[in-house]
Amino acid sequence: MASLSRADHEAGAVSPRLPADHPGVNKLFAVLAYGEIAAFYRLAEEAKMAPDLRGRISMASMAAAEMGHYELLRDALEGRGVDVVPAMAEFASALDNYHRLTTPSTWLEALVKTYVGDALAADFYLEIADGLPDEVADVVRAALAETEHSQFVVAEVRAAVTRSSKQRSRLALWSRRLLGEAITQAQYVLAEHDELVDLVVSGTDGLAQLTGFFDRVQRTHDKRMRELGLI
Amino acid sequence: MASLSRADHEAGAVSPRLPADHPGVNKLFAVLAYGEIAAFYRLAEEAKMAPDLRGRISMASMAAAEMGHYELLRDALEGRGVDVVPAMAEFASALDNYHRLTTPSTWLEALVKTYVGDALAADFYLEIADGLPDEVADVVRAALAETEHSQFVVAEVRAAVTRSSKQRSRLALWSRRLLGEAITQAQYVLAEHDELVDLVVSGTDGLAQLTGFFDRVQRTHDKRMRELGLI
Repeated sequence: MASLSRADHEAGAVSPRLPADHPGVNKLFAVLAYGEIAAFYRLAEEAKMAPDLRGRISMASMAAAEMGHYELLRDALEGRGVDVVPAMAEFASALDNYHRLTTPSTWLEALVKTYVGDALAADFYLEIADGLPDEVADVVRAALAETEHSQFVVAEVRAAVTRSSKQRSRLALWSRRLLGEAITQAQYVLAEHDELVDLVVSGTDGLAQLTGFFDRVQRTHDKRMRELGLI
Repeated sequence: MASLSRADHEAGAVSPRLPADHPGVNKLFAVLAYGEIAAFYRLAEEAKMAPDLRGRISMASMAAAEMGHYELLRDALEGRGVDVVPAMAEFASALDNYHRLTTPSTWLEALVKTYVGDALAADFYLEIADGLPDEVADVVRAALAETEHSQFVVAEVRAAVTRSSKQRSRLALWSRRLLGEAITQAQYVLAEHDELVDLVVSGTDGLAQLTGFFDRVQRTHDKRMRELGLI
């Protein structure tokens, strides 16, 4: 399937949509689902750095929203006859590594990670969803639907970096590190799952454009940094 | 207001319902709301003891359900013109103490605490809700609506105590300790909040029956222990 769609792309054919039963779709839902669980526990853990009850409540609300998204993906996987827990387990190490390597050391770092990390995940997955049949793409989009919760992050980070240029430089570096680790782990995942490469290739108009895919992720990352007042 | 309803009870009058704008209602919603936040973080923390991903997912789902209940209570408080975060803060120490004094040391203790703790909270609050106007009682009942999640606890605990009578004795003791700490903290909260005493008195047909209230909590606790195979 992969070689076929690549050949089509190279021949300049109109981007073919992969069928909904492509095995990469189960992998995509599974990595997304594990991502929600990992994000849940990361938010609950990082909330310990919150300076007050209000911050802890915001983190808990975001964590609960991740579980809502998890449930969508779990239902979609079950509907496809997939045993959810083992399917997710193969993505645990890459996602756990990302979180381990980007453990924030301050509340502001935790906030930036929440905002930038969620946005990066959305960038990756929505690009892929564009090459998939609607019934699959709709699940991905619903699971990534932005919640209003992360808006409190923008206000708090902007206020902090407006007050302190040292804080701004520090958080800008942190934000670039998040991007770097996310791309590294995404590449590990792709290297180990050919079925997912098929999906990325289909969504990004051919393997030759895979570099373009990561460039676009970089550009939208810069947009997020501007929103946070970091550049 | 308190003395009036007590006098009515003592005179054997039909149990008067407290008005929906009784100040105790705001306190009741606030203590319930903080309880959801505390439960969220306790579940996320105790999930670390889970032996596998399945257990961690179950705990995360239960934690997310607590936040759904929190949002109901927050909306109800906001609808009553209450500033939610400061209103909750005055109940933080009693609830945090309960969790600190009942930190489980094993996964089975964590499961029993989840099940028994949720049930105890429901026993307390539903008794109180019975004496309140429907519009108030409905919020309390919705916030305490049982989720199906805790059923996985029953199966896992029963299996463990069927295999090991030592485990059964250990968890039975643990369960009694949970009851004791819950009653102790509930009494602290009541001692500091006369408005809440009004509500308990109204729900339990008079102050003289307050002992009966705690007896009933004890009896339903025994029922839960039987469900778990602990007696």
